[in-house]
Amino acid sequence: MLDIATTIRTAKEASRGLASITTEVKDRALEAMASALGSRKEEVMSANMRDIAENPDVQGAMLKRLKLNSDKIDAMVEGIRSVKGLKDPVGETMSAMEMDDGLTLYQVRCPIGMIGVIFEARPEVVPQILSLCIKSGNGVVFKGGREALNSNRCIFGILMDAIKGIFPTEPYVMLETREDVDSILGLNDCIDLLIPRGSNAFVRYIQSNTAIPVLGHSSGICHVYVDSAADIGKALDVVLDSKIQYPAACNAVETVLVNSSVAKDFLPRMDSLFRQNGVEVRCDPASKMYMPSAVDAEESDWDTEYNDMIVSIRTVDSVKDAIDFINAHGSHHTDAIVTEDRAAMVAFYNSVDSADVFVNASTRFADGFRFGKGAEIGISTNKIHSRGPVGMEGLMIYKYIIIGGGQVVKDYSGPDARKFKHIPVDRELEMR
Amino acid sequence: MLDIATTIRTAKEASRGLASITTEVKDRALEAMASALGSRKEEVMSANMRDIAENPDVQGAMLKRLKLNSDKIDAMVEGIRSVKGLKDPVGETMSAMEMDDGLTLYQVRCPIGMIGVIFEARPEVVPQILSLCIKSGNGVVFKGGREALNSNRCIFGILMDAIKGIFPTEPYVMLETREDVDSILGLNDCIDLLIPRGSNAFVRYIQSNTAIPVLGHSSGICHVYVDSAADIGKALDVVLDSKIQYPAACNAVETVLVNSSVAKDFLPRMDSLFRQNGVEVRCDPASKMYMPSAVDAEESDWDTEYNDMIVSIRTVDSVKDAIDFINAHGSHHTDAIVTEDRAAMVAFYNSVDSADVFVNASTRFADGFRFGKGAEIGISTNKIHSRGPVGMEGLMIYKYIIIGGGQVVKDYSGPDARKFKHIPVDRELEMR
Repeated sequence: MLDIATTIRTAKEASRGLASITTEVKDRALEAMASALGSRKEEVMSANMRDIAENPDVQGAMLKRLKLNSDKIDAMVEGIRSVKGLKDPVGETMSAMEMDDGLTLYQVRCPIGMIGVIFEARPEVVPQILSLCIKSGNGVVFKGGREALNSNRCIFGILMDAIKGIFPTEPYVMLETREDVDSILGLNDCIDLLIPRGSNAFVRYIQSNTAIPVLGHSSGICHVYVDSAADIGKALDVVLDSKIQYPAACNAVETVLVNSSVAKDFLPRMDSLFRQNGVEVRCDPASKMYMPSAVDAEESDWDTEYNDMIVSIRTVDSVKDAIDFINAHGSHHTDAIVTEDRAAMVAFYNSVDSADVFVNASTRFADGFRFGKGAEIGISTNKIHSRGPVGMEGLMIYKYIIIGGGQVVKDYSGPDARKFKHIPVDRELEMR
Repeated sequence: MLDIATTIRTAKEASRGLASITTEVKDRALEAMASALGSRKEEVMSANMRDIAENPDVQGAMLKRLKLNSDKIDAMVEGIRSVKGLKDPVGETMSAMEMDDGLTLYQVRCPIGMIGVIFEARPEVVPQILSLCIKSGNGVVFKGGREALNSNRCIFGILMDAIKGIFPTEPYVMLETREDVDSILGLNDCIDLLIPRGSNAFVRYIQSNTAIPVLGHSSGICHVYVDSAADIGKALDVVLDSKIQYPAACNAVETVLVNSSVAKDFLPRMDSLFRQNGVEVRCDPASKMYMPSAVDAEESDWDTEYNDMIVSIRTVDSVKDAIDFINAHGSHHTDAIVTEDRAAMVAFYNSVDSADVFVNASTRFADGFRFGKGAEIGISTNKIHSRGPVGMEGLMIYKYIIIGGGQVVKDYSGPDARKFKHIPVDRELEMR
């Protein structure tokens, strides 16, 4: 057996040809993947049952993520077809400029290269990321969790069988052993971007143990700020939905900030709604006046992602205090303000340093599907490349191409230098 | 004195307000900087003379970079005014979409936050990066080399004096001691992007000792491939210019690949041109037949950035071999093909995995000024965020902003879910 570095290096070399493959071929491969997965559903289900049987320690939320059924596989098939429907981004001319007569500069979109995907439990990551990478011309090395070994191997095998003869399979690798994770993290000459999908601790481990750029987020400590000019009815709706609609999600609210001038109106009603819905409330002394049965918050509550039916509530005196608190305690993921005041809203969305900043809407809207991206790679709290919900655009970069006629820089230098024209032009470079 | 982490954390907090500052105020600050620097030229020159006197070990190319004169300072002043002339990118609506009636999603351009600039010798880095960061709403922490201590301190002082009362100075910090470099590298919670400017070894040290994203390149091993369908006259011009126009630059050619079918025509003429211009040629055995006086290349020559009047030459049998060689031995910076054949040219620019891929033009065109960017931060060989010559766009990211009317995700979930509309709209979000 080849060692991992050699396997991945070979895949990387093969991935360089992917930028030249036509949209028609890519779509044919995606269609073959979708129909193979649809017709070989039983194999996937029985592999998945083996995983569940072999891993009795996997329980609760993780078991829910691991366990496949017919609907989940149908959703995978539909997901592949929806990626097929996305526009092919490879080779798109992003800009063109005449530097001089017969010397044209093009900025052309191209694949990043080799994507490393390290994930826990969820077997649907394989068809989801594989289809996005085929459409965008990237290679992939997958490393799934041991608890989904049989499911991942089965799904990956079916998809590779399907594209054989249509599309190169060499750029796609599935690793299986535990040790492989660390060997991937050191391959910064082969892997251009890492996408970790799993628990906060898992993502944090990846982020702090590699020199490869990582796309994603470790924690989601999201806030809703109820402003002095809030419509209280909207505030109650938005806060409740942000907390209870799916409390385990990264975009669920953890801390609610309330302007002291509306605390008296808002807090008793919010408290009773939370109690009706089984949410535990932890609050600061100023809020406690209006919700005497709440638990006293500790200092650590202001920096905690509960991922559960628990919320912390704190009173602030101004939109500025809310902004400062969010920038200091949040995870720069998704934060919302409820207000009818234009100045408060503008200050909030200008100064809150988060990927998603919402006005009068639930934090739960932070999601690739809801943002209309078709397919989501993940949600990024990075401040370079891609931020917030990331679709296929996160798998693309560009290159600059000059088409000239033998020009040399000498002629554009020194006392008698020719001047550049730098005229933007509307022209496409043919990439095939 | 405050410790460095506290100083930078304070600057970072102050930097959050920069996104709200109007273009008019930014341009006023830039104009004040330009005129102050112009009128206090003598102070800068005498500080620079102190640096030269105190660092007798600085010689050669480094001394040339360190030494200022009236023209260099005029160029700094002009540089600041040219940044003033650039369009303000902050707050630009990049896209807008109606998710539903009264629920609009905006993608808005915003500053990255806090930029760390670590540089050697060149004092012009300070006005150049500072002006770009003021226009783009970013904070900066500078750390210059000890050899330019007095020059940097003087220039930074003049620029800060100039903007005082017009623009906040808190987001701008100049560090001075040697130890500061390592303390910057660990501040990944404060510094969002590092820009190193200096030697290859220096940039490589930064890249491998920080978890902060680094924008730049360590080496520039660039190639020119002379195809079987090359116009030999163009090939001679392009190769010579790529080598000798400024051999110390990162975009100068280091290795020339020649298709074996044109070796006989091309190599003797190229060899004699190189010899006339004092370039040392190192070649493989196949090329040696046509240039018997050349030095024999060693294996290491194919992976060497000479930064000097030395070139390596190698014969290949096809455009595919040239592409594979460049992808294996190059630094993914800038590579060129000389050919009149469309298929060769398309294969080359599709498959060479470099930031800049040129057809029939000198590699020396890879430069922000020549690309018409107005001001250059550096040249990036990264494959995420920014690639190739990078202008102000490299200092920007975006945030997603939703403006709603109290919408909750619950209504868009479950069996009676409201459907999203996802209609792209041409609408700007007012950011002030």
